[in-house]
Amino acid sequence: MTDKYAQLVNQGLGKNVAKKLGLPQPAVLRRYEPGQPLVTGPVVVLGETAAADKLAAELLSWDLDVRRHAVPREKLGAIILVLDEVAHPRDLEKPVLAAAGSLRDLGPCARVVTVSRPSGETDTPAAAAARQGVDGFLRSLAKELRAGATGNGILLDGGVEAASPSVLAALRFFLSGRSAYVDGQFLTVSSAAGSLPDDVERPLAGKVAVVTGAARGIGAQIARTLHRDGATLVLVDLPAAGDHLAAVANAVKGTALQLDITREDAGQRILEHAVQRHGRLDIMVHNAGITRDKLLANMDHGRWSSVININISAQLRINEALLASEHFGPAPRIVSVASTSGIAGNRGQTNYAASKGGVMGMVRATSSLVAAAGGTINAVAPGFIETEMTERIPFALREVARRANSLQQGGKPADVAETIAFLASDAAGGINGEVLRVCGQNMVGA
Amino acid sequence: MTDKYAQLVNQGLGKNVAKKLGLPQPAVLRRYEPGQPLVTGPVVVLGETAAADKLAAELLSWDLDVRRHAVPREKLGAIILVLDEVAHPRDLEKPVLAAAGSLRDLGPCARVVTVSRPSGETDTPAAAAARQGVDGFLRSLAKELRAGATGNGILLDGGVEAASPSVLAALRFFLSGRSAYVDGQFLTVSSAAGSLPDDVERPLAGKVAVVTGAARGIGAQIARTLHRDGATLVLVDLPAAGDHLAAVANAVKGTALQLDITREDAGQRILEHAVQRHGRLDIMVHNAGITRDKLLANMDHGRWSSVININISAQLRINEALLASEHFGPAPRIVSVASTSGIAGNRGQTNYAASKGGVMGMVRATSSLVAAAGGTINAVAPGFIETEMTERIPFALREVARRANSLQQGGKPADVAETIAFLASDAAGGINGEVLRVCGQNMVGA
Repeated sequence: MTDKYAQLVNQGLGKNVAKKLGLPQPAVLRRYEPGQPLVTGPVVVLGETAAADKLAAELLSWDLDVRRHAVPREKLGAIILVLDEVAHPRDLEKPVLAAAGSLRDLGPCARVVTVSRPSGETDTPAAAAARQGVDGFLRSLAKELRAGATGNGILLDGGVEAASPSVLAALRFFLSGRSAYVDGQFLTVSSAAGSLPDDVERPLAGKVAVVTGAARGIGAQIARTLHRDGATLVLVDLPAAGDHLAAVANAVKGTALQLDITREDAGQRILEHAVQRHGRLDIMVHNAGITRDKLLANMDHGRWSSVININISAQLRINEALLASEHFGPAPRIVSVASTSGIAGNRGQTNYAASKGGVMGMVRATSSLVAAAGGTINAVAPGFIETEMTERIPFALREVARRANSLQQGGKPADVAETIAFLASDAAGGINGEVLRVCGQNMVGA
Repeated sequence: MTDKYAQLVNQGLGKNVAKKLGLPQPAVLRRYEPGQPLVTGPVVVLGETAAADKLAAELLSWDLDVRRHAVPREKLGAIILVLDEVAHPRDLEKPVLAAAGSLRDLGPCARVVTVSRPSGETDTPAAAAARQGVDGFLRSLAKELRAGATGNGILLDGGVEAASPSVLAALRFFLSGRSAYVDGQFLTVSSAAGSLPDDVERPLAGKVAVVTGAARGIGAQIARTLHRDGATLVLVDLPAAGDHLAAVANAVKGTALQLDITREDAGQRILEHAVQRHGRLDIMVHNAGITRDKLLANMDHGRWSSVININISAQLRINEALLASEHFGPAPRIVSVASTSGIAGNRGQTNYAASKGGVMGMVRATSSLVAAAGGTINAVAPGFIETEMTERIPFALREVARRANSLQQGGKPADVAETIAFLASDAAGGINGEVLRVCGQNMVGA
């Protein structure tokens, strides 16, 4: 679970040697801790639209140092590039070149965030070209940024305005250390729903959250992060993992539920436990998942069906039970863990990629059902995350997989957990049916 | 333009050495030539739906050797996996494991093609999961296939039936050597429009096609391929490329039009030339494009604006002129050349990726306008293609770029040209607003 190479090339002699040899020097990412400033320096808001004015005013109200024009040679914490009114590809040049002029002033782990609108079939061809141009631009720029800086985009869908709660929440997420390993990605805000928290450091206060596969690894970290953000936790895992599960439950002052999630009545049992022990259920995190890798030529019934049953069929059945219940909500949140393997496929993982592709299809198709209940469903798609599981990958293969992303390193379970905590919050109520990759802009071949 | 490494490891001593050392051994791909058999052996059609029956009957009528169940140890030309009725992830297992049992029997440059339906917001969650599961499955499988075999999928959108002209045309394309470098991709057929050609070897007979940037490289090859398929060609390029342009025009018995496509009246001039010299205009291929690579921190007005003007703004203006004309059609086709850089971004190419992202946004938004005129607009997105341009990339970087795809080699201009010829044909009338990657399943990080 430690990236010894990254440690080596970031200190003392190793740092000098790596630099001289031109070896990758993955930056130490700035990760969120309570009390940490949102950004590391002044924020420049570029763009001459009403949305840019609104966002700049909002950032001022967050006590940030806000500039509408860059001051030469001042170390910046972030550049926000507001492109919501581009109607023709030629409109991109002015704001883009303004941003270009400030790139060298970005400090370590700085942020570039674009705010624009998604291109669609009903746009004029010129507007669609300009909007989709932002996509190619931002993904290229994210590959150029160095020293732990990232680039991500917020897409205002339909009539959503820049000052909508989920736009502000997404902006805060992308600026903060919570999004350390999210890079080169776009997140669509499709409604003005959602409400900002009273306490930004405890956005999940008063919520009851269930996490499956919580005994270890990413699941255990999700529990810790949701607890830190104020939630009361129900930790679910197999009876065989009982000791680990109890330890996690103790650490986060939650309750443990030993349960095989593939049982017919798993959803009912989760509901019963949450309501009986904690009086409610607000957040369902589908984290439990397994791999049974094998080339398809050698695939068998056991490997295929166990992966499909646990990784997707169980989620479908549990969601159905939750959505039929009056105890789920009033603003329910479902967050599923997908995978970049489900987006791009992966050699040896036809079963796993089918199940994780399935999760993403399920999330999109379930979004209108959850919206009808006043809630949202979204997925995160982790790339290479440093866990006990990836620790077992042979060294050379692991090294390649670790570095094949714009941040030249694997992510941490906390990076996945932070993204889930964000999507589970009330403030993310305008984000529904989306998949957000947590992968350092992994070169996965989608 | 030659891949000397691939030549070396595919013959004599080099072949043995590469095998012993475990070096990549990119296969020699089977590329289309007139008169060539469609596939290299029997075709197994798996799946127990009405669509599977229809497709099997259709393939029989093409004089192929068709099996509904694999015969052990018979070398196969293709497996067609019909999954159009999967309604739950559990439905995938039976056909998938049937395919698994035949994978070892696939001959060199064999094909796997899935036929399924796209997942959407209005599906049941279980159906959406099953459908999106096909996506993760197929992309994984494509990464497992070896010896030049590829895997691609056809998506039947809305009410489109398996026997629709464009489904059959897409199936023929994916089975044939025309799609040699298309791998891990899905193509959506969204309407029953389109008509199959009288002569499958001259599907563009009687058509007049314009190709921009036709003096060299991919553009010249597009001209040759469209000519081979029966089209009459108008070749467009800058006056400075006049000699090369004239040579290509002579070779394909077409006419040359020296024109700067960024002129205000470029569309009118193209129309005038085509109508005056050839009496009509059916097919517009937007191939002309430039790169002016530079990190964004060093980007300037000249580099940014020239790329945007030539690569996207010119296409917008020309399309507007064509769609306003009564001489474009009656079943007009527009095909644009995009790029995997526009999908995933590329370091040093913020301008190019913005322009190529723009092309894809434009194509989607123009599709309803072209449909109203009885036609289609689509894009191809090439990955690493062996041209004079890529020949100038430094050796080590070029080697990495060449191998970072499932076929472990760069594509050829002919691969891009074949895909354009297919999308330009009458048979592809049910395919509109799509982007098809020609990239060997390039690891681009989208």
